Amino acid sequence: MTDDAQAVKLYPDDLEAGQRFTSPSHVMELDEIREFAGRYDPQFFHLDDELARDSLPLAGGLIGAGGEISWPRATWPGDRIHVESEIVTIAQSRSKPERGLVTFRSETLNQDGEIVQVFTPKIVSWRRPVIELRKNA
Amino acid sequence: MTDDAQAVKLYPDDLEAGQRFTSPSHVMELDEIREFAGRYDPQFFHLDDELARDSLPLAGGLIGAGGEISWPRATWPGDRIHVESEIVTIAQSRSKPERGLVTFRSETLNQDGEIVQVFTPKIVSWRRPVIELRKNA
Repeated sequence: MTDDAQAVKLYPDDLEAGQRFTSPSHVMELDEIREFAGRYDPQFFHLDDELARDSLPLAGGLIGAGGEISWPRATWPGDRIHVESEIVTIAQSRSKPERGLVTFRSETLNQDGEIVQVFTPKIVSWRRPVIELRKNA
Repeated sequence: MTDDAQAVKLYPDDLEAGQRFTSPSHVMELDEIREFAGRYDPQFFHLDDELARDSLPLAGGLIGAGGEISWPRATWPGDRIHVESEIVTIAQSRSKPERGLVTFRSETLNQDGEIVQVFTPKIVSWRRPVIELRKNA
């Protein structure tokens, strides 16, 4: 996908606001999706073709709606990293009451406790099915 | 890295602000870095151990400082995607005049022209070496 991305060396002096760049195209192959997701994002709708077709819109799973990401320092070979996440806010959708939007702050720390990545993803989540109870009155 | 992430099915009703989750640890192996970067981020400081050691802080390359990311719709197997990027702002560092910070808006589009990802990365960039000219006066 980025074969040509480094072909030209550009410095800030060569750049100006409004300049546009277009990448080559890349076809998302099923095998590549499965392989990547199997290692880095093993959710059923990435890994199982049938379930993905049947379940969207999803009855579960983590759907990232986006977020802010930063890398305050480099990660090096041999670093041992882990992720610590905290729920920041939980909001229920007004238009779709079965949905919630959960904002996390996820810090990736190395073996020295230094933060190497901060990601604040907004995750779409589904509420439990609600059973309606009717009173006989 | 996410082997245990799906072990428990949590709905918004189970969640509250302040809850914390910790991932298992993952050691960043040189082979995995090279393999991943070779496919998805082929920059010299990810691929060449010697150059990485010699060149940091870098004399070139694209260093992402972070940004906002969102996925407005899903990407499916067989989709043909490409990236269109535009420079939004260019700022020169005051404390480090050899550095610039370039903000891009990068849209990933599918074959139907639908936006599947928006990323607004801030890229640290290095200015051309400046030759100081002194007048004989």
